[in-house]
Amino acid sequence: MGISVDTFFLELNGQGTLQAQIQQMIAEGILSGRFHVGEKLPSSRKLAAHLGVSRITVTLAYTELLANDYLTAKGRSGYFVSQNAPVPPKYSPVQKRDENVDWDTALARRFSDGDVLPKPSNWRDYKYPFIYGQADRKLFDHANWRLCAVRALGHKDFASLTGDYMDQDDPLLIEFIARHTLPRRGIAARPEEILITMGAQNALWLASRILLNRNRTAVIEDPCYYALRDLLNHSDCKVSPLAVDRDGLTPDALPDETDVIFTTPSHQSPTTATMPVDRRHELLKRARELDAMVVEDDYEFEMAFLGSPSPALKSMDRDGRVIYVGSFSKSLFPGLRLGYIVGSEPFIREARALRSLVLRHPPGHIQRTAAYFLSLGHYDAQIRRMSKTLARRREALDSAVEQYGLTVAGRGIMGGSSLWMSAPDRVDTTKLAKKLQSQGVHIEPGASFFNGLHQPRNFYRLGYSSIGRDRIGPGVKLIADAIRSA
Amino acid sequence: MGISVDTFFLELNGQGTLQAQIQQMIAEGILSGRFHVGEKLPSSRKLAAHLGVSRITVTLAYTELLANDYLTAKGRSGYFVSQNAPVPPKYSPVQKRDENVDWDTALARRFSDGDVLPKPSNWRDYKYPFIYGQADRKLFDHANWRLCAVRALGHKDFASLTGDYMDQDDPLLIEFIARHTLPRRGIAARPEEILITMGAQNALWLASRILLNRNRTAVIEDPCYYALRDLLNHSDCKVSPLAVDRDGLTPDALPDETDVIFTTPSHQSPTTATMPVDRRHELLKRARELDAMVVEDDYEFEMAFLGSPSPALKSMDRDGRVIYVGSFSKSLFPGLRLGYIVGSEPFIREARALRSLVLRHPPGHIQRTAAYFLSLGHYDAQIRRMSKTLARRREALDSAVEQYGLTVAGRGIMGGSSLWMSAPDRVDTTKLAKKLQSQGVHIEPGASFFNGLHQPRNFYRLGYSSIGRDRIGPGVKLIADAIRSA
Repeated sequence: MGISVDTFFLELNGQGTLQAQIQQMIAEGILSGRFHVGEKLPSSRKLAAHLGVSRITVTLAYTELLANDYLTAKGRSGYFVSQNAPVPPKYSPVQKRDENVDWDTALARRFSDGDVLPKPSNWRDYKYPFIYGQADRKLFDHANWRLCAVRALGHKDFASLTGDYMDQDDPLLIEFIARHTLPRRGIAARPEEILITMGAQNALWLASRILLNRNRTAVIEDPCYYALRDLLNHSDCKVSPLAVDRDGLTPDALPDETDVIFTTPSHQSPTTATMPVDRRHELLKRARELDAMVVEDDYEFEMAFLGSPSPALKSMDRDGRVIYVGSFSKSLFPGLRLGYIVGSEPFIREARALRSLVLRHPPGHIQRTAAYFLSLGHYDAQIRRMSKTLARRREALDSAVEQYGLTVAGRGIMGGSSLWMSAPDRVDTTKLAKKLQSQGVHIEPGASFFNGLHQPRNFYRLGYSSIGRDRIGPGVKLIADAIRSA
Repeated sequence: MGISVDTFFLELNGQGTLQAQIQQMIAEGILSGRFHVGEKLPSSRKLAAHLGVSRITVTLAYTELLANDYLTAKGRSGYFVSQNAPVPPKYSPVQKRDENVDWDTALARRFSDGDVLPKPSNWRDYKYPFIYGQADRKLFDHANWRLCAVRALGHKDFASLTGDYMDQDDPLLIEFIARHTLPRRGIAARPEEILITMGAQNALWLASRILLNRNRTAVIEDPCYYALRDLLNHSDCKVSPLAVDRDGLTPDALPDETDVIFTTPSHQSPTTATMPVDRRHELLKRARELDAMVVEDDYEFEMAFLGSPSPALKSMDRDGRVIYVGSFSKSLFPGLRLGYIVGSEPFIREARALRSLVLRHPPGHIQRTAAYFLSLGHYDAQIRRMSKTLARRREALDSAVEQYGLTVAGRGIMGGSSLWMSAPDRVDTTKLAKKLQSQGVHIEPGASFFNGLHQPRNFYRLGYSSIGRDRIGPGVKLIADAIRSA
């Protein structure tokens, strides 16, 4: 591709002759890495017209750069960046700056102070990636996804591909979720009670903004999904962590000032506990007494290969008190950024308006692709395939954990894609994870999941959604060895 | 697709015999529209196992429904929803509810009270769609977009398609924007100074959350893009509208308490005024005096077919005071939801963290598709094609407006895709638009663009990005007739 003439500007009060300025402009483009070797420069005629200078001025500048070996000429086809021109490793533009903004004052709010360890972006290079929540290319039905995407790119779907939905969603996707996805969780919802979100994260965020303010209190589970805690800590609200037991959240311990309860009853995150039916009734009763709302994050419900999942808490809700959050990140892939939120109409109306203010809507093409993938049955087939594979991996993990004497702190009775583990008290799993890294083992340290200053340091999570079955045993052995020598 | 067995649940304290409960469950599924004619029911064996009842109970329930003509049996292939079963027009589930949430209390914040008229979603059916900011299928290079999307769906790009980028972006897209897009606006930025957003709306929202709080004042142009005003009115900040003149924002009228200035210097929205270079210098000088930040929305800069666009305000910024917002919504299509925000690193760091809290990142596949479309040169070709077509339409519009005696209130000297018009004072363009609707003419009433209670009612916007050239003359005639008879 040629270098566009539109990227050249003379400075208003430039120094030196016009020719010198043009030369400098091009040399800077090359030196900064903006122009690459072999790229074609605009013709002298075009550049002269664009800059409003005479053509001879540009020609002289080019000739000079030719002599300096910044450019080469290829007969009549024009001027190109020379192979001999100095090549910087990466584009880092020459900055003409004298920054004088006091950022401590200019930034009204800070969001970059979360205490979460970033997941390694190169996790695919690990030999033993016990990573959680990432896509395994072997389990994903790439071929059919691609076919659905291509269909959604067709002329018939042009509007769904390109249109500004304003605050609306793809009706095909909404209908499928209402008719097929939610009924699996025992939930009956009309289209007006469903909003598509940019994954569960976006859904939780929308709920927090709508239901909370600085006078209200959110109760979160302790431990909980760290991104939820981070999100609420950055909202203007009070956050009250409540320790979970082996059955999940304890309704009778909910404080009187509770306004919104964030919970994962089907599959507590990260301990994987499933809340028994009686406790669910208690929870709804207690919420009614407190006049509190409940936000149910029903992540990973599809991965129920060890037993039938119990219906969602939302299916027992007669009050309209439960806001339900679902996601395709685990069952399809996280980069898709598609989830949904279900609630009574007054809530969804506000969520729709807020989503529209913040981002309008998730891209139409992606919504339509997912609608096809779901409605053609590929999704169900994929879930079955994933469940089978996860079941085998889980079996391997359970037996390796037993063989090498590791301690399970919580194991999803339905299935899922991770085990919640504990190491002896003296072991700091953050350090352990770092040490294991050099042996190609990725584990997720557990401290970030806990609230407050005195986070237990000896928990960790073992995901098995992205690690091959044959790697599980040897990986667990390395973990056991590292714990023993810690 | 068959009806999944997972969507059947017996109620805990269900009324009647098990057989009756099963019958009722299926009848409800049909009556509510959840099950469609011809869909296959689970086998009696599967359903019995799932519900934990005897198979004969299910078989009896099916037989009864067969007799009632809700189901038909096709020999050994099973039971299907009968063609004679009652079919409701749309899925509207039977709600077992007794809603008792007081939504006035439960909703901590409201977002659904904007005063903006929704654009008609059926605008493609209008004969004379003077609509703004929508995609014209005739101008979009569908074929090449599709090729790029398919390439980005390939195995090599699997990670970009599926991966959880956490808080990162597609490096290919970022690099292209840094090397090719921003230099066209005279802007030199490093990758760390660029963040991909869900369109310009998302970029403006991020900037407002980071730079403002309840003690700070945002200055907006009056009139301005109504979605920006709506967004700021829902932020915890003070909003101070400042009337624009024919050259845009007036720097010397900026109030002393200004913290953040939202401006559209290249192409004022909606008046299309271009701010002269001297005034841009003044604006930056005044911002420095006030120690205020400037958010520059550089929308539509690509549509400069009447004259070279002046460089962005950001290109003149040595202080690091200008936050630059760009978008692909106008040049590609709005349903894409892709834009970018450029600023100094301390700002981008916070924007990245906030974006991650709210939605993680724009989907990887879309970022990669755009990166291919841009880097293969299709984007430039598309812009050239669009500019040529828009230039011809603009010519037709200019001459029709003159012929029928309409009044132009602002016309972009660079080009753009709309004219800002005024009708005589007595004409309420909201009513005018409604009246024209019955004649197949869509115009955009101008009142929503103005701040405050006393919005002028006689302005309107004529978009020409989605209307064929031959329709422009007849459409303008209808508008002129309607104004005369108003």
